[in-house]
Amino acid sequence: MKKIGVVLSGCGVFDGSEIHETVITLLAIARNGAEAVCFAPDKTQADVINHLTGEPMAESRNVLIEAARLARGTIQPLANAKAQELDALIVPGGFGAAKNLSNFASQGSVCTVEPDLVTLARDCHAAGKPLGFICIAPALLPVILQTPLRLTIGTDVDTADVVEEMGGEHVPCPVNDIVVDEEQKVVTTPAYMLAQRIDEAADGIEKLVSRVLGLCADA
Amino acid sequence: MKKIGVVLSGCGVFDGSEIHETVITLLAIARNGAEAVCFAPDKTQADVINHLTGEPMAESRNVLIEAARLARGTIQPLANAKAQELDALIVPGGFGAAKNLSNFASQGSVCTVEPDLVTLARDCHAAGKPLGFICIAPALLPVILQTPLRLTIGTDVDTADVVEEMGGEHVPCPVNDIVVDEEQKVVTTPAYMLAQRIDEAADGIEKLVSRVLGLCADA
Repeated sequence: MKKIGVVLSGCGVFDGSEIHETVITLLAIARNGAEAVCFAPDKTQADVINHLTGEPMAESRNVLIEAARLARGTIQPLANAKAQELDALIVPGGFGAAKNLSNFASQGSVCTVEPDLVTLARDCHAAGKPLGFICIAPALLPVILQTPLRLTIGTDVDTADVVEEMGGEHVPCPVNDIVVDEEQKVVTTPAYMLAQRIDEAADGIEKLVSRVLGLCADA
Repeated sequence: MKKIGVVLSGCGVFDGSEIHETVITLLAIARNGAEAVCFAPDKTQADVINHLTGEPMAESRNVLIEAARLARGTIQPLANAKAQELDALIVPGGFGAAKNLSNFASQGSVCTVEPDLVTLARDCHAAGKPLGFICIAPALLPVILQTPLRLTIGTDVDTADVVEEMGGEHVPCPVNDIVVDEEQKVVTTPAYMLAQRIDEAADGIEKLVSRVLGLCADA
């Protein structure tokens, strides 16, 4: 059974991993006969957002502990992840990707990415294992891979410009579809960068998971 | 478009709504062409559990604010819910159902249920609108409806005994199936009372949502 690493960044669209995107990813992995192996960095969240009001809360939460909610407790520190134990890597979106897995939300094109994610994704990529990045997470790919590649964050022109500034080739993509860089084995989908409904996000994510599994070496 | 009330109890299996069950429910509602309308009680959670360790945390969180994570902010206080604005009602599981929507976890057969949930579910039921309860949530049905009905919480004999003590007729059910009380228009499924994998829970929940929608008056 193929093992697919899933890197989480908390639990909630405004300060962590987008919950719908994550669960749809986990379900699609299981329905494709593979196994999800969840990871998250063991560090303090950049912030805690009240998801009812959108305002910051005077609280501190840990990324790994909150991400454990999404994984029903079965999750490991990102620092423990080893590319050789995985067949592919998927990173769902949510602001956590731009605030906890990187500082893209505040630094844009000059952002830095969590070193353990850089190492893991580069090791997977170097070993020919496919990467699937969802929603805003694809914006981290030019920094992580340091190589030209085709990707999408949907159709948002400002974000697309930043991605191109970082060295990515941005391809506009509808919510229910994916962009595949066959050579780099990188699959991306807009999900909630564009989705107005959960089923729109699901259509694209299910295609992404299916394609990522199809790109695995022994497929 | 049919409006399906979804009552949440926080965000996380050990102290709130089970996240996978909730997202699968929301996705199934959308894919069946209906609209989910999310509610949660505006009150303090019974506890906050570290989902990495399973241990209580010295924190206080609000049920509605945490449930808002699952609903991407689009959620209302349960006290505002009106049966006449809904076509059906669904309650996902997770310990939140047994700790925040009721005190079933500590009181068992003599538990009490959140009064706003009792009112909403009874009003829906009295108006002939179907109810779908998932995982441990069906254990609240005998208290809420105060009428004999057939339901399942899976195959756990101890919990089933408690449910029968409360006046329910417990029907053992495999993880990927549902129990339907056609007369009462009540649909239940075991989900993570039995599921070892997310796709097992999804199979039963998708059947439940489909049947609940099929039982709606104008279907």
